[in-house]
Amino acid sequence: MSSRVIKLDSQMFASADRIEQITKKIINEKKRGLNVVVVVPFIHLLDEKLKQYAYSITNEPSKRELDAIRSTNSQIASSLLAIAINKFGFKAVSLTGWQAGIETITPNRTVLIENVNRQIIKDYLNNDVIPIIAGGQGIDQDNNITILGEGGAETSAVAVAIAIEADKVDIYTNAIGVYTADPKIVKAARKINQITYDEMLELSLLGSKIIHPRAVELAKKYSMPLDVCSSTENVPGTLIKGEVEMERNLIVRGVAYETDIIRLTVGYESYEQVSLASLFTTLAENQINVDIIVQAVIDGVKPTVSFSIDKEVFAEAIKVLESHKQSLGFSYADFEVGLAKVSIVGSGMTSNPGVAARMFERLLKENILVKMVSTSEIKVSVVVPQDDMVRAANALHDEFNLVEELL
Amino acid sequence: MSSRVIKLDSQMFASADRIEQITKKIINEKKRGLNVVVVVPFIHLLDEKLKQYAYSITNEPSKRELDAIRSTNSQIASSLLAIAINKFGFKAVSLTGWQAGIETITPNRTVLIENVNRQIIKDYLNNDVIPIIAGGQGIDQDNNITILGEGGAETSAVAVAIAIEADKVDIYTNAIGVYTADPKIVKAARKINQITYDEMLELSLLGSKIIHPRAVELAKKYSMPLDVCSSTENVPGTLIKGEVEMERNLIVRGVAYETDIIRLTVGYESYEQVSLASLFTTLAENQINVDIIVQAVIDGVKPTVSFSIDKEVFAEAIKVLESHKQSLGFSYADFEVGLAKVSIVGSGMTSNPGVAARMFERLLKENILVKMVSTSEIKVSVVVPQDDMVRAANALHDEFNLVEELL
Repeated sequence: MSSRVIKLDSQMFASADRIEQITKKIINEKKRGLNVVVVVPFIHLLDEKLKQYAYSITNEPSKRELDAIRSTNSQIASSLLAIAINKFGFKAVSLTGWQAGIETITPNRTVLIENVNRQIIKDYLNNDVIPIIAGGQGIDQDNNITILGEGGAETSAVAVAIAIEADKVDIYTNAIGVYTADPKIVKAARKINQITYDEMLELSLLGSKIIHPRAVELAKKYSMPLDVCSSTENVPGTLIKGEVEMERNLIVRGVAYETDIIRLTVGYESYEQVSLASLFTTLAENQINVDIIVQAVIDGVKPTVSFSIDKEVFAEAIKVLESHKQSLGFSYADFEVGLAKVSIVGSGMTSNPGVAARMFERLLKENILVKMVSTSEIKVSVVVPQDDMVRAANALHDEFNLVEELL
Repeated sequence: MSSRVIKLDSQMFASADRIEQITKKIINEKKRGLNVVVVVPFIHLLDEKLKQYAYSITNEPSKRELDAIRSTNSQIASSLLAIAINKFGFKAVSLTGWQAGIETITPNRTVLIENVNRQIIKDYLNNDVIPIIAGGQGIDQDNNITILGEGGAETSAVAVAIAIEADKVDIYTNAIGVYTADPKIVKAARKINQITYDEMLELSLLGSKIIHPRAVELAKKYSMPLDVCSSTENVPGTLIKGEVEMERNLIVRGVAYETDIIRLTVGYESYEQVSLASLFTTLAENQINVDIIVQAVIDGVKPTVSFSIDKEVFAEAIKVLESHKQSLGFSYADFEVGLAKVSIVGSGMTSNPGVAARMFERLLKENILVKMVSTSEIKVSVVVPQDDMVRAANALHDEFNLVEELL
């Protein structure tokens, strides 16, 4: 009998009615003769409350205890769902991370899944029980409760699916799949039927909130198909897998955007003083993630290095630069706010030179100033004024024919 | 180094200030050079909220899932306390029931502690860490999370103390110990310095809320001393142990009371129809706890059986009696409300005949009608009109010289 892992969304726990709605959908899958395993996420509202408890004692609760407190979140959610499924006469049990045998390691700050005890889950499935696993949590080798962090619940779902050799993971969302662009800003956006792991990874990294890149990476590594689909409507979703046959001839698969980008620029008196290594090592050591980096070395002009960061880390970045000014050897630091990043993504680009050029041309035609550029094998990102972001996204969506109907 | 188990009370988690207050007291014990283990209770307010979650889905959540949800309560409490202790620079870790190795069995509805993995706790103590154990919970042999029920946290504390061979368990309360009577109704009540397990057991069973009889029973079995003491004041509490030397000559140790007692009476046409076994088996099968039983068989008068029950089970008891009237063979059922039970407790009674007689004499002198009587080796209970309860308790407190100062 084939097995299916279903990953739920926080909003599906917003009320008893919503829980009942999703319960019926899960039972329908079960009735179709599938071995169903459900992975529940953290409930946002509850997570806030639990964190408040911890921070009422001190501003710096230990990570171990904060994790122990926060883990009760998806533990409660999984029990509630099990109760709801029981109510309809089907067998279900809630499983915390440790009960499901999800073992984690923490090589450097980030908690990673090391192993999933497949036998525990298989035993429940063999007894016709639906295991409801608390997502985003596990235990380390010393039996401490651990929290996987961002994208944890999705990652749990993929890891469990790999362990029990499920046929795919259904990622239930409130949309009906992955779109060529955010429908909120690009009216012509449409659902993508199939997309590769790499394309989805880029879209996720570039700001699409549908699925966390971490889960996509794990799925890619083990070739586990992900199906992003509606939790309410019975329509096909977006299948994420290794290779996409149907739409291969399409160069660009989607347009992504990210707001509140800040460009920082540091200037040096002479080229000898520029050390990219020490600059970015210092920033990294202070947990400041840098995105696009541009180094301008023009004859006769004093050298500068620009890089983009998120608004959240701006204050910290300025602080770090100031306190390391001497050792880093730059003479001034400057910044520009009110920027946004717009990206095009598609594995077709690799074999299609001139995609970036076509992008710049269209933006020029639209009179949109490109402040920074970054390219990879399957994406091109530009930083533009935030006020032009929506226009840029729509223009690029149009330029690369994403609006056209596909097989 | 000697080890001490400290059991906290729900009210000590009422606010961040209260948590800090109790944290300081725990740290003081640690500073005295003791190996300290703390057991935290269920926080009442949180327990209500968690139950509400479960019952929002159905009126009949499975016990397994309800336990899983409710267990997050003391899990959160233990983490909060660990965070608070960390804040003062001392090492502490929260431990859930399964992390602390508390294994349970459920022979019949009631969850019992089967074993505590002493090594886990000892390892933390050897590393100078204060383990903060979530009380009232454990895991069964199938790794299901279990809740111990009434008196669970105290029972966890005693079980842990036995496992690690602690010198005693400190039961922190908001009073300063066990009293000869409830100071709210008997003004002359005073703190008892020492009391035996059996006496405490009777006081607990008779309505004293200080410590659950279940925990006293376990402590008695393993001769583990319990010290009921103040969580705020630095005064000696009440030591509960096997034999009490100092106050041995005292006949009665305390007066207890219980309100809202209902007397049910069933009447039969003839003695042949009376079957106490089937009557009380039927009630027990329907979870109705019966306390005092009085059977009146008087020549020439039709036989009756009276028994006392708590107000909470009254409606259910009436229902059970009605639906089994035929098979139980009684001809009518009657009841009397507005009653209370007043008891005197003391192991000195065993060797002191006439204690009950002296009790009845005093109540007669006070013009208090005795409706039912029950005696054991170390206690005499009477059921009286609730309006006379306070007067009865004070009179008996006076009669048996409980007001006198003792060593």
